[in-house]
Amino acid sequence: MKVCRRETFNSAHRLFREDWSDEKNLEVFGKCSYPNFHGHNYILEVWVEGEIDPETGFVIDLKELKHIILGSVIERFDHRNLNLDCPEFKGINPTTENIARVIWNILREQLDHKFGIEVQLSETEKNKVFFNGN
Amino acid sequence: MKVCRRETFNSAHRLFREDWSDEKNLEVFGKCSYPNFHGHNYILEVWVEGEIDPETGFVIDLKELKHIILGSVIERFDHRNLNLDCPEFKGINPTTENIARVIWNILREQLDHKFGIEVQLSETEKNKVFFNGN
Amino acid sequence: MKVCRRETFNSAHRLFREDWSDEKNLEVFGKCSYPNFHGHNYILEVWVEGEIDPETGFVIDLKELKHIILGSVIERFDHRNLNLDCPEFKGINPTTENIARVIWNILREQLDHKFGIEVQLSETEKNKVFFNGN
Amino acid sequence: MKVCRRETFNSAHRLFREDWSDEKNLEVFGKCSYPNFHGHNYILEVWVEGEIDPETGFVIDLKELKHIILGSVIERFDHRNLNLDCPEFKGINPTTENIARVIWNILREQLDHKFGIEVQLSETEKNKVFFNGN
Amino acid sequence: MKVCRRETFNSAHRLFREDWSDEKNLEVFGKCSYPNFHGHNYILEVWVEGEIDPETGFVIDLKELKHIILGSVIERFDHRNLNLDCPEFKGINPTTENIARVIWNILREQLDHKFGIEVQLSETEKNKVFFNGN
Amino acid sequence: MKVCRRETFNSAHRLFREDWSDEKNLEVFGKCSYPNFHGHNYILEVWVEGEIDPETGFVIDLKELKHIILGSVIERFDHRNLNLDCPEFKGINPTTENIARVIWNILREQLDHKFGIEVQLSETEKNKVFFNGN
Repeated sequence: MKVCRRETFNSAHRLFREDWSDEKNLEVFGKCSYPNFHGHNYILEVWVEGEIDPETGFVIDLKELKHIILGSVIERFDHRNLNLDCPEFKGINPTTENIARVIWNILREQLDHKFGIEVQLSETEKNKVFFNGN
Repeated sequence: MKVCRRETFNSAHRLFREDWSDEKNLEVFGKCSYPNFHGHNYILEVWVEGEIDPETGFVIDLKELKHIILGSVIERFDHRNLNLDCPEFKGINPTTENIARVIWNILREQLDHKFGIEVQLSETEKNKVFFNGN
Repeated sequence: MKVCRRETFNSAHRLFREDWSDEKNLEVFGKCSYPNFHGHNYILEVWVEGEIDPETGFVIDLKELKHIILGSVIERFDHRNLNLDCPEFKGINPTTENIARVIWNILREQLDHKFGIEVQLSETEKNKVFFNGN
Repeated sequence: MKVCRRETFNSAHRLFREDWSDEKNLEVFGKCSYPNFHGHNYILEVWVEGEIDPETGFVIDLKELKHIILGSVIERFDHRNLNLDCPEFKGINPTTENIARVIWNILREQLDHKFGIEVQLSETEKNKVFFNGN
Repeated sequence: MKVCRRETFNSAHRLFREDWSDEKNLEVFGKCSYPNFHGHNYILEVWVEGEIDPETGFVIDLKELKHIILGSVIERFDHRNLNLDCPEFKGINPTTENIARVIWNILREQLDHKFGIEVQLSETEKNKVFFNGN
Repeated sequence: MKVCRRETFNSAHRLFREDWSDEKNLEVFGKCSYPNFHGHNYILEVWVEGEIDPETGFVIDLKELKHIILGSVIERFDHRNLNLDCPEFKGINPTTENIARVIWNILREQLDHKFGIEVQLSETEKNKVFFNGN
């Protein structure tokens, strides 16, 4: 049994490696590397896998999961520039894949290890990623 | 290969344990325990896993799957109060998890055992669950 | 120029006239009149029409509009039974049309009369209404 | 008769007046004024009103409308920082209202005056604006 | 007050004038003119404008509106080839504009003239039209 | 880690076996077998599973994946009649299951075998299939 909570955040970013020239960044990352940033409405789905608690009928209380996501993920990244404001991406290119992995790691520290965690993160209507820690 | 049919139903419910005081119900389930019920547009996705029948090109005829879902699930729960009208939830708190498990069990009796079954049930735009029988 | 804020609420209701017999209620309102209620995820769009304030670039601050909607509409109807809990529907059948009109009237009292107001309210994926006060 | 073409663009921005202190910007615009920008997946709907051409059955060829929108709007704003990269917002706070008005003015110059134009622009799933030139 | 019912139908069509050469059809209508047809999941929204009936709280019973739409529109066009199967498009290019106008005319004959009618028809996620009879 | 690219195509088709009578086709496939075809807006999600490249932060460059999907899948099937125009369905009934399998096989030849591939294909808002090659 898995349960899912959906939250959103709005951030600026650019794809970019400091150790590459601007030309190489542009060649590899295209307009995603433009120097003054662009941004996205990220849609985050957090899936938590576990047993149904026979007392409450919940795998996890989704109000509690919501507060964990808001406090540990949305608070950090919403209305922020992932490259400039977020030490989590120091030396890490903020691709959707890397953002999902960072979020998964944050949640892994917040949630009891009896729970499995899966993260789905949409960057646009056409691009999204999935990470389950493997 | 898996195929999916999506149907919806609109029900009233409250989260509530009879053996708890109103205070404890309110403390644990919050506004979901309010005594006069609230309701949801539940969105049900039923996934059926199997081989493609070489004669028809179908895993299962989705018209047939639709009729099974309508007859055995939607008919029971649509425009009903899950707590008051549905014996399936006698002594079972109608959380999304428990509703999904009840639906999975109903479908398991209706569908040939050569098929795997997965149920995804959305309660709101932000909350959903997944159950595959394990 | 019009701006829109979208919020949701989850309520139970039934369509029902006290002065009609159960048979007549069932005949006219069908399964929407079942006695123990059903419910919906209502989706509310509030459109506010006005001039752009040259100082802020806003017609109305959507944070402010959000707080007005949450405080005056969502707080009243979310996780409530419209028939039993909400005096606004005393003697008024809680059809989507009537709910939209009640919401429009509430917002009309909250918002400066320099603003036009339009309300769109979805009851299901297939049924919605629009009201602009006329 | 009106026809609509939907396109999207991803931009960074912040709400901010140069002639206000950082404190006042933060007070009025909240986290939307954070200095390092955030961003959105803007969804643009362009509605064109006119008569059906009896020869083609089109109000306007939507392929042509698409190319006009891509060439004159999306090309300018997609993957750009509205505050830093786009002279259209020199001295204009890039609120959704102002972006919609800028887009409407761009399209008004591109399209034959026999057509009426309406622009709907969504900034998030919850916030959107509508402008028809009045 | 306006109320809306949403229905869908799946049809094949091509854009094509018999009195034009294949070359001219291809030049004007592009891949939409390919000879063996393509198809769409059309999404139809029918809006009906009127007064709320004080007895029922309905502008129009949406169950009744649904049956009118299913019987007079969906039945005719669903799983059909608009060019070959539907006399409504004899000599009329089945553009989204023309389909919407044909549907509006059908509904105008079915619905009491005290009601205003608006039709919104989506051909793809990016293209849609609106017609209100003017 | 899995990444997903979403694309759409619009095709005509009918469900039909040449070696069956029209009556049997109609009995088994219902209105999906009508002789003059109908059509759909197919929504394709291609998921690619692999390791994050530490240099780019990508599992696969989604621009590259987009070009592969457009060039090898969309180009073939968009605005085409799957039964008449597409040799891939010679002797194969173009059910959603079979279309997904054909697409999976095409992509399997295009993508490095270090990647896992999953295909989700929606035929309507209510019907979709999933195939991962097993």
